[in-house]
Amino acid sequence: MANIYFDHNATTALDNRVLEAMLPWMTNQAGNPTSRHVFGRSARDAVEHARAQVAEACGAYTSQVVFTSCGTEANNFAVKGIAAIKSAATARQILTSAIEHPCVTRPAIAMQQHGYVSQKIVVDANGKVDLEKFKLQLKTPTGLVSVMLANNETGVIQELGTIADMARSAGAFMHTDAVQALGKIDLSFADLNVNAMTISSHKIHGPQGAAALVVDKKLDIQPLLHGGGQEKGLRSGTENVAAIVGFGAACELAMSNRANFATHTAALRNQLEQGLQALDVSIFGKQVARIPNTSFFAIDNIEGETLVMALDRKGYAVASGSACSSDSTEPSHVLLAMDIPADVARGAVRVSFGASNTAAQVANFLATLNNEIMRLKQLTAIAA
Amino acid sequence: MANIYFDHNATTALDNRVLEAMLPWMTNQAGNPTSRHVFGRSARDAVEHARAQVAEACGAYTSQVVFTSCGTEANNFAVKGIAAIKSAATARQILTSAIEHPCVTRPAIAMQQHGYVSQKIVVDANGKVDLEKFKLQLKTPTGLVSVMLANNETGVIQELGTIADMARSAGAFMHTDAVQALGKIDLSFADLNVNAMTISSHKIHGPQGAAALVVDKKLDIQPLLHGGGQEKGLRSGTENVAAIVGFGAACELAMSNRANFATHTAALRNQLEQGLQALDVSIFGKQVARIPNTSFFAIDNIEGETLVMALDRKGYAVASGSACSSDSTEPSHVLLAMDIPADVARGAVRVSFGASNTAAQVANFLATLNNEIMRLKQLTAIAA
Repeated sequence: MANIYFDHNATTALDNRVLEAMLPWMTNQAGNPTSRHVFGRSARDAVEHARAQVAEACGAYTSQVVFTSCGTEANNFAVKGIAAIKSAATARQILTSAIEHPCVTRPAIAMQQHGYVSQKIVVDANGKVDLEKFKLQLKTPTGLVSVMLANNETGVIQELGTIADMARSAGAFMHTDAVQALGKIDLSFADLNVNAMTISSHKIHGPQGAAALVVDKKLDIQPLLHGGGQEKGLRSGTENVAAIVGFGAACELAMSNRANFATHTAALRNQLEQGLQALDVSIFGKQVARIPNTSFFAIDNIEGETLVMALDRKGYAVASGSACSSDSTEPSHVLLAMDIPADVARGAVRVSFGASNTAAQVANFLATLNNEIMRLKQLTAIAA
Repeated sequence: MANIYFDHNATTALDNRVLEAMLPWMTNQAGNPTSRHVFGRSARDAVEHARAQVAEACGAYTSQVVFTSCGTEANNFAVKGIAAIKSAATARQILTSAIEHPCVTRPAIAMQQHGYVSQKIVVDANGKVDLEKFKLQLKTPTGLVSVMLANNETGVIQELGTIADMARSAGAFMHTDAVQALGKIDLSFADLNVNAMTISSHKIHGPQGAAALVVDKKLDIQPLLHGGGQEKGLRSGTENVAAIVGFGAACELAMSNRANFATHTAALRNQLEQGLQALDVSIFGKQVARIPNTSFFAIDNIEGETLVMALDRKGYAVASGSACSSDSTEPSHVLLAMDIPADVARGAVRVSFGASNTAAQVANFLATLNNEIMRLKQLTAIAA
């Protein structure tokens, strides 16, 4: 039985071309980029080359890219580092959307012990920020607003330019978690008009262990990791040279593949969602713009977790919600924020396609899904 | 011209056997360890296997190992996470030795804005903690003491058991940065009697991107990275699976090679330091116990930085001080703490050997060093 991977929003396989770029840094004596001898200088050059590749892929200047170890670190750095700016520390409200990843909301909540007040921004039934309510919330002096560009579960894309303009007009700093957007839609730090933006390597066939916070240099963000002063003092710690090199290479590939990726995965998703119509499903966020590879749906009276495990036994890797959160039997906070009833939300299953998935895989998956749903419904009927 | 690497305290080459252990996680579809499908479970198993290997190498229980992205992150986590414990927050003094790496001292200083007072622990002329003065400092209510086990520049080993006993008897929590000790001397978390200990992968021929804070489970340490709740809530963020697997493999190799490493590098150092006697040098920390691979010395009237660059041109990679700090022309803070005059400290050069270095390399290095010193002294004489 082949195991088919439909969980690309959780993590992706390392591209062979990325591995090739990394291997020189894993097979020879590589230096610490801070060292001044030839080994160190060569490692430094590799890091700076990767920085240019990353900047290019997200419409930023090289000087704006601060490497971190993962998206979670970049988001913690953004939230805590911006909150610590003097003017933000005066306007003590932190607004994060109700559908953020926990690595944005939990740092915001952690800042409450330092006198900040963390509030959620309401989203509508499609999972988009309610701009009217957001406008009202901004009447309270706000230091920081963080809204993700594309949601990891539904794939729904926000009107981020508008949100950023509103936040900045109200005097707040603006951060966006763009981890799920990179490589899937056009991404330009300059155009988004945010002060800081998070991107990550392992969602675009780069290695785990590299991510970046793209930071407007006028922002006096405070470091989260203090020490040797790497990354111009904004992120101390020996650079993970091989991972950073891989992140750069993955960005370059993602740039050149983006149009094909979008066409290919959107076709697979259309095929999937047309097939799902025959079943009794709700597809979340279908009415609005989404990243092309993601479908999040629920089948009436079927527990999502149970279905995910049943599909896993049949060789299909899908998710029941955010794979970035540790074990949790709570229904998806994203769906609850969209006012989806908890019993429907518990049925949610996420399929996220990658470039290597095929139409045949989707056709077979639909047949398997149909069988498993029938089987589970029979089991439920017997138990009842 | 061969480039000879004598800077193993800065970073080490990845061992081929470690790379082999990592490659399955870089060439196949690997899952996110949080995912519940087969890809995710398999990644989770790999992380847990590595955790056992790491625990075994440092005399800890598996449950005590919290993976981080680097030593700097682990040290920041230790200092800030322990300071945030309620009882530590009451006893507001943080004591760090005057020879700590900046990734311990700077987080301690950063905590001052939250009402803590960071003080330095004095060391003697050999670079060892002055126990009498330390005892006096502990009369002030102290939340946290952090003293490194082996210094990265001099290699000097502290009486850590005694220091930890004194700190804990005074009611303080005790942390040690053992990054330079792992693989070089016997290391047992249980025996050291500390509450938390930092170790890192890339100093023992493992990959960059993995480190650990070993934490006594009774310690209510607070997370630095909030989010999905990985590492039992103590370090959120998708695990860097390949790097963690590599760290585990490197720990296993370091354990089995440790005795040979010690014998081999101690012999090279003896050869080096005997050769240095013919020159006009001070060798720092030579009177006390040091890790076997490290020699830190200064040549009268020669700028260390100049010598390092001259040796680099001749094919030898050595350091002028801590390679973990970014560009800095200040003399080593370690030597200043040892009361070495600034003009002597500016002459400091560090040689740190690895298993692959040879006696022939050391002999050739001594000849080159001799030539370069003569050349530089002539240049100085002409300039004067």
